[in-house]
Amino acid sequence: MSSSYAVLEEIGRYILRARRIAIVTHERPDADALGSSLGLAHALRHIGKEATVFSFDSVPFGLHFLPGIETIVADLPGPETDLVVAVDAGEPSQIGDRLYNAIIRLGVPLLVVDHHESNVGYGTLSAIFPERASTAEVIFSLLQVMEIPPDAAVATCLLAGIVFDTRAFAIPDTGPETLETAATLMRYGGSLYDVMTAYRGQHPLKALRLWGEALTRLETQDGVAWTVVSQDMYRTTDTAMEDTEGLANFILDAADVRISLVFRERPAGGPIRVSGRAKPGINLVPLARSYPKGGGHKMAVGFEIPLPLDEAVRTALKRLEELRRSGRLDDSP
Amino acid sequence: MSSSYAVLEEIGRYILRARRIAIVTHERPDADALGSSLGLAHALRHIGKEATVFSFDSVPFGLHFLPGIETIVADLPGPETDLVVAVDAGEPSQIGDRLYNAIIRLGVPLLVVDHHESNVGYGTLSAIFPERASTAEVIFSLLQVMEIPPDAAVATCLLAGIVFDTRAFAIPDTGPETLETAATLMRYGGSLYDVMTAYRGQHPLKALRLWGEALTRLETQDGVAWTVVSQDMYRTTDTAMEDTEGLANFILDAADVRISLVFRERPAGGPIRVSGRAKPGINLVPLARSYPKGGGHKMAVGFEIPLPLDEAVRTALKRLEELRRSGRLDDSP
Repeated sequence: MSSSYAVLEEIGRYILRARRIAIVTHERPDADALGSSLGLAHALRHIGKEATVFSFDSVPFGLHFLPGIETIVADLPGPETDLVVAVDAGEPSQIGDRLYNAIIRLGVPLLVVDHHESNVGYGTLSAIFPERASTAEVIFSLLQVMEIPPDAAVATCLLAGIVFDTRAFAIPDTGPETLETAATLMRYGGSLYDVMTAYRGQHPLKALRLWGEALTRLETQDGVAWTVVSQDMYRTTDTAMEDTEGLANFILDAADVRISLVFRERPAGGPIRVSGRAKPGINLVPLARSYPKGGGHKMAVGFEIPLPLDEAVRTALKRLEELRRSGRLDDSP
Repeated sequence: MSSSYAVLEEIGRYILRARRIAIVTHERPDADALGSSLGLAHALRHIGKEATVFSFDSVPFGLHFLPGIETIVADLPGPETDLVVAVDAGEPSQIGDRLYNAIIRLGVPLLVVDHHESNVGYGTLSAIFPERASTAEVIFSLLQVMEIPPDAAVATCLLAGIVFDTRAFAIPDTGPETLETAATLMRYGGSLYDVMTAYRGQHPLKALRLWGEALTRLETQDGVAWTVVSQDMYRTTDTAMEDTEGLANFILDAADVRISLVFRERPAGGPIRVSGRAKPGINLVPLARSYPKGGGHKMAVGFEIPLPLDEAVRTALKRLEELRRSGRLDDSP
């Protein structure tokens, strides 16, 4: 269920009454988490608030361009804090125990702004808009309700959230209002070009060499395409597991592919990590759930197989075939 | 220089007076050429005109989803034609001699609608808007001026022109008005998702295997990344030259690449065909112009080198290095 604008107005009143505002987000923050947090912090500073983003995590490759990224504090908010806003975090555990416990000990209001349908509705007040493709769009609505016009820095931060969370406007959730918000942010000085360049440039060249090795190993049957990334391939290309990010989506984009699977060894060993992607009409969740650490959405899942690489591929393809045949992966609208 | 809306109004008056309208575009038509032509044809049929798109070329891979693509006629417009609209074609020669000569022989008005700055302004009347990222946006303005609301088919055709010509909103020319037009077309029922899926799915899986072979051969020095596609690589992956489309852009996207070069043998032999791409601040035109058939824009050029593959790579890199050192590739704004 979606929150109403009345909640955003109430959140605005909390913010106006506060002086020192801590902004937190989920662990291993992505572009929407960081862009929404920083965009809100910039905007609140414009109206005279002391606003600080707290995160213990390192900034992911390619997001250092976000205006104000260097202002993020890897510490706990101090006792002077009189309001906390949690952004893009679906549940307390995602904020991380250390930070969340510190927030609770502060005993100040905790406001939640998010777009995840799975958001459990924690905190003093929560504004959750699952029909929005990104939390950045919800932050933009909040700023509109509060009548704070974004400057170029705010606009670029929020554009980053929109672009990265929509796979650059490619996911089905991208609505006309998504494009309209992006256009408005450009009119406020946000640079779509900088954000798109960052989105497309999430990999260094050596990652493309790793992708090359994986793509030459592509196999396919009945619209399913799969490949492997072995420890040996990381070694020869001087890459790490994070360099495989996006590969399963890239393979899925091929015109004649309905399902893509990427089987990755970890550089340090352990179970095989599998990424699965599907085109609309297919639900991969039953496949993912049948394995350890399986989860995700219909069209994007991850799971683990505690077997050697070759065996992992063989058994997963067999199980996929069984589930498909029994109709359990069908997702008719 | 950009045309004014008055020209669109006059074009609208020509169209209203006509009964049988032929629409033509450039040879080897891309998504903007076909989407703009078909979108205009659909819209004119809604107001009772007989509108036909003429083209002798086959539809490129991935564009068969365009609504009405099967209505394109591979013939010359007949004597019953009383108006011709040329769409997305910068000069008469791009329409092709056979079609253009037939149009001239008809002796009816020829209206030109385009967004290319290089458009020479031929025809009875020409509406050229170089500040638009696509001709589809100009067609949309024409329909607005004529007060013809697009239906879903028109909207999807025009969205295709916008998305493909802007590299899915990634080129610097993408302005807020581009996003606003796309949003409006979605509200008229256009499917951005279908268009984005077509844009990303321009390759079959076997093309990704060819890319894999090319990416494993990537070399790099001083921000320049290059690779080769040999006849042998086409053979082992069962691919053709068209399957390399997009590869140079893909390599350029890597965060640590400033210039990308892809050297391609042709399956049938002949000079090496080179695609060059650059990030902003670099102008590759002097490099391209120093070779046969060299041309393009600052950040996207093509040229030919009549040498064996290895030698072509060696000499082009040497010339690139010389031009860079002498500052002749600098493009300071």
